[in-house]
Parts: sequence; C-alpha cells; structure tokens
Amino acid sequence: MEVVATDGEARAGVLRTPRGEVETPTFMPVGTKATVKGLTMEEVRRTGAGIVLGNTYHLYFRPGVEVVQEAGGLHAFSGWKGPMLTDSGGFQVFSLAKTRRISEEGVAFASIYDGSPHFFTPELVVEVQEALGADIAMVLDECPPHDADYGYHAESLRRTARWAERCRTAHTREDQALFGIVQGGLHRELRLESLKRTVELDFPGYAIGGLSVGEERGAMLEALAYVASGLPADRPRYFMGIGDPVGVVEVIGLGVDMFDCVLPTRLARHGSALTAAGRLNLKNARFRRDFLPLDPECGCEVCAEYTRAYLAHLVREDELLGHRLVTFHNVYFMEELCRRARAAILEGRYARWAAEWRGRYAGS
Amino acid sequence: MEVVATDGEARAGVLRTPRGEVETPTFMPVGTKATVKGLTMEEVRRTGAGIVLGNTYHLYFRPGVEVVQEAGGLHAFSGWKGPMLTDSGGFQVFSLAKTRRISEEGVAFASIYDGSPHFFTPELVVEVQEALGADIAMVLDECPPHDADYGYHAESLRRTARWAERCRTAHTREDQALFGIVQGGLHRELRLESLKRTVELDFPGYAIGGLSVGEERGAMLEALAYVASGLPADRPRYFMGIGDPVGVVEVIGLGVDMFDCVLPTRLARHGSALTAAGRLNLKNARFRRDFLPLDPECGCEVCAEYTRAYLAHLVREDELLGHRLVTFHNVYFMEELCRRARAAILEGRYARWAAEWRGRYAGS
Repeated sequence: MEVVATDGEARAGVLRTPRGEVETPTFMPVGTKATVKGLTMEEVRRTGAGIVLGNTYHLYFRPGVEVVQEAGGLHAFSGWKGPMLTDSGGFQVFSLAKTRRISEEGVAFASIYDGSPHFFTPELVVEVQEALGADIAMVLDECPPHDADYGYHAESLRRTARWAERCRTAHTREDQALFGIVQGGLHRELRLESLKRTVELDFPGYAIGGLSVGEERGAMLEALAYVASGLPADRPRYFMGIGDPVGVVEVIGLGVDMFDCVLPTRLARHGSALTAAGRLNLKNARFRRDFLPLDPECGCEVCAEYTRAYLAHLVREDELLGHRLVTFHNVYFMEELCRRARAAILEGRYARWAAEWRGRYAGS
Repeated sequence: MEVVATDGEARAGVLRTPRGEVETPTFMPVGTKATVKGLTMEEVRRTGAGIVLGNTYHLYFRPGVEVVQEAGGLHAFSGWKGPMLTDSGGFQVFSLAKTRRISEEGVAFASIYDGSPHFFTPELVVEVQEALGADIAMVLDECPPHDADYGYHAESLRRTARWAERCRTAHTREDQALFGIVQGGLHRELRLESLKRTVELDFPGYAIGGLSVGEERGAMLEALAYVASGLPADRPRYFMGIGDPVGVVEVIGLGVDMFDCVLPTRLARHGSALTAAGRLNLKNARFRRDFLPLDPECGCEVCAEYTRAYLAHLVREDELLGHRLVTFHNVYFMEELCRRARAAILEGRYARWAAEWRGRYAGS
C-alpha cells in the first residue's frame, strides 16, 4: 500500500493487489454469497467499487468450498474480476450461532443453514480462504460483545493473537495477503496490547475489529484513534463493519483506508436511499408524486434514469427492480463519498470538507 | 400491420405503432406494474422484445392512474421507449376478484389490494388506458371459465360485443389503437358469432381471448384455427395469455402474430430456465457443479457470462440476482424463439422447423 497523501490523520492511498490497484479510502460492498444483492458484478464495477468482500462463513456452507474451487475460485464463480477480500467467518460464527463453544483449538458451532455441527480453527479458515482465492484473507478472530467484562476481553484478545500467529503459519498462498485483526474491546490497555501483539506478527495489512458493534460513537472513535496511530503507516488499515455515511467520514478522518458494511445494501432493500441530504425512506407518502431523481446531486445511472415516484412505486410493491436500483444507488453513493473524501485529503482540506458534508447530511 | 410472408397459416409481419415497428410473431413480456420482474427496460430491449404489456388492473391501483399520468404516461413512468400494449383489466377483474357482479353496465368488484369496491365500465377502461397512454389498448371483455355452460357463454359473448362497441365509441386517442377481443368459449358457433360481431366493429387489431385457460390443448388449437382463419388478414392477431414454448410454436403455426404470458418470468422466479432442450429446474442437485451455460445454444448475455452452478446457487439461496438473470434468459429465449419462427416462415419451412424444434424440446 502506498500512502499518496495525508491530511491530519486521514490518508489517501493506493492499495496494490494481484488483481489490480484500489484507490483508498474505499468502501467494499459485501458480496455475502458471491453476489452483491441484486447487482451484477459489472454493475458493482460501475458503482466505482474497487474491491468486493465475500463472507467465508456463508460461502463455506452455500454453495460450499468445493463448488467454488471447482469453478476456479470466487472470482471465476462470481464474475468479479477485480480485487476481492474474504473475511475469516469468525464474525458470523460469533454473531449468528445460537450456541458455540470456544477453546484454544478453535470454535465449535452449529450451522445456521441446517444446524449441523462444525469446528473452525485458524488453520481451517486459512485453508478455506486459500481455496476461495480472494486477494486478501483475514485471520480468525473472536469479536466479543463490547460490553463483555475486562477479563473476558483480555483472555479473548490473547487467544485471538495466538490464532493470528497460527493463521500466519498456516498461510501459504503467495498471491494472497493475510491481514491481522486488532481486538480488545473499549479498554485502552487491552486494545494497545492487541495492537502490539498483532503488529509484532508483521502482517501486510491490519483490520480493526470489535468496533461499531453497538457501543457509543464517541468511545468507538476514541479507541479507533489510538489504534490507528499505533499501526504501521505503510500498511492498509481496514475498519470492519462500518457503512453509515457519517461514521465513514469520521473513521476516514482517523486514518482508515478500507471499510465494509451491509448497511447500504440492506437499507436499499428496505426502501431507504442514501443522499447528500440524508436518508430518504421511499415508503413515505411524499415520494408517490415526486418526479425528481433520488439524489439530484448524484451522478449515478439510477439517478439519471429514474424518478423517486417510480422507485417509490417499485419499493412499495416489493418489486425486484426497486431493490436492485436503490442498491446500485446506495453503493454508488458510498463510493462517491470515498472519492470525494480522497479528493479532499489530496487537497489538504479534509476536516473542512467533512464538516461541510456533515452539515448537509441531515439524516442519521 | 403488414404481412411480409405467409407459410401455411403462419405469418411473418411488421406491426406499426406510433413508437416504432415490431417484427412479428412477437412475444410481449408482461410488465405488470410498470416493470418486467427484476429487469430494467433497457434489459428488456436487449432480450429482443419489441413490445411490452402493462396490466391496467394493477396500474389502476398501484401506483394509480393519476401518478402515471403526472409522470407523462406509462412510457415515461417506466422508461420503456418502444411500443406498449395495455390490457383492459377485465381478465384480472374476473380471475382475481373473490366476488364480482356483472351487469350490462359493467362489472363491480373488490380491489385485491384493499378490498375497496370498484366498478369498471367499457368507458372507464378506455379512459384509463388513454391516460396510461400505451400504443395499443384493449376493449373490456368477459373471459368466462372455459367450462361455463353454453347459455352463459352465449350471453357473455353478446355482452362483450356490446361492451366492445361502447369501448370503440368512447375511444378518442388517435395515437392509440384499440383492439377487439373474440370470446365464445369452445363452442364453435358461439366463437364464430363472437368473431362476426367483433369483426363487424372494424377494429385495427383482434385478440383471441378465453383460450389457454385450462381447456385441452387440442380443443384450444381447434378453436384458434377457425377463429384465426376468419379474422381479416391485414390486421394483427393477438393470442392472449400463452407463453409455454410448445404452445407458442403451435399458435404461431395457426397464424398468431402477438402473444403474452407471465409464464417465462414466473418460471424464472421459481428457478426454471427455458432451453432448447426443455425446461431446467435449477434447484435440481445435478446443477450444483454444472459449469455449462444455462443453454449452450443460447446467445444471450446471461449464457455468455454465467454458469448453471452459479445460477443454481443464486436460485437456491433466493438471491435477487438469480431471479433477475434467469428472467432475462427466459424472456430472451421466447424472443429468440419468435425470431427463429419468423425466419422459418420467411423461408417457407415453418412446419418442418416447428416439428424439428418440438422434437428437441424435451420438456413440457
């Protein structure tokens, strides 16, 4: 990763992968099961997205690693030709499973699909991600609830660090980068311990996990600030799971290069559009006869072609086309937000730009 | 309508409308509520579809005529730039309503959306269709169950003929053609009476209604044959509601120029793909690791880009993209079938082509 410019803590960079370069900061749309909800990968590309995320947990079960491997990997299977990142599946194991049993060896859980028992180890999730073949893979980590007690966070981050080392040892693909993950909850000394242990393992990139999981926004930003400032400046920084526009502008300001979230695509399926003036709920009666584009300032193909009245009609009637078009717009909105953030960083006016942008974004 | 070539009873023609020409025979995808399930209108165009159908019943309630009118009509509202046809809403009134009361004046029914009482008259459905602004509108007709008794069919077809005359009187738009509809069930003399009464009203096009509604295929084809041969040769012939490929090839052979059906799009949403070798149910386990295109002989963009394994995965997981891609393929399949039928008619080999095609189409 090359950092092209900094502005305060904010960074504009270029992430280099075997499948091309990505300008940062960048929003990674979530292609849960080898598809970004309703969009073709060609459309994902047209939103401006440079890198797409796949969920190892879901792909492991649906369609299964063997099918993806036989197809020639996740790129060939899904049709996405650019850089791709897979998570380790750990987050889903911890957030979706009704029952799970964690041990030094790994984590036992029941599949959400059929309840069958499974056991993820650091070695297994590396093997699976190597088979999926994304350009960036993630270590297995535990993401404890933010309000777990100090002792649990301490125990957990140390196990996560040992798992990270086992992942690094197991990882063999030269054409795939393996990123470490900093955990530690909201306890400064635990976060710093996790930071130190993870950075000592010398990963080519680092994720910040366990934030934006229900805690206060101020506490999140405080934790992010001291973690980001302790990460090596020449490695990409990936904030896991943030996608609300206000939060995104804040974390970019603290030096985050990459982030992902299902929020923009999930909001779309519920009829909410992201716009420069905040969120629009298309089910609101006032859009039934509103013949403006979703966001009059947006340059996307949906805003060029369709009216709010038409999209509101589709959304109310639960028409597939509505979900799809608003999804396209919302992803484009996030990518455009990143492009504008990058331009502001390059011009050394990020703080002012962010304040002005925030002032107009009425929602959230 | 210009008939370019005939081959036996089959016809290749050109339908002329204010929004352009359509080569016939042609399959009209059903854009129920101003959208063809999951596809953009630009994609509908790329399937090769020349004319799209809108459902007056659904549009009357959702989004409502006023909204469509304010948008500038159904073309502007939906984004479809080519020729469009709206039905009268009668078929939905008779097939969807739990209770309805028919009288000489019109038909009273309860909306499927909110149960509210409504009354459709010939004059009202013309007024609504003029407001929607399609290139072709349909008269209000009653489509009785095929097994209704002789007396009911006789009474019904005569009322439908009187309604047709009222529609013609009420119709004022010069840039919109109003088609008559032949009913009469499966009773030869009643069909011929309906034919005579409808043709006497001198419509610019004629639809054949009340067939393909559950009767035996042989009885349907027999009725179609004597109706088609009695229709004026210089007017388009629209068979309402047929979309299974085998049936389509049969009715084209009997001189049908236009037809519509929700079957290709509905099958797609249930994971069934139409191919030269018959229907494929993508939920079948054998497709999980099948890396061929949906239909190796198909020239559509879905078959160029995606494997059965990927599409089967999307369909199994109920992913929007799966519904959308199979919908595109199925509509393309129907349009390609029409193009091939047309080519065979132009070359005077329709009967042989149809027999060979049927031999390979294993399904249905």
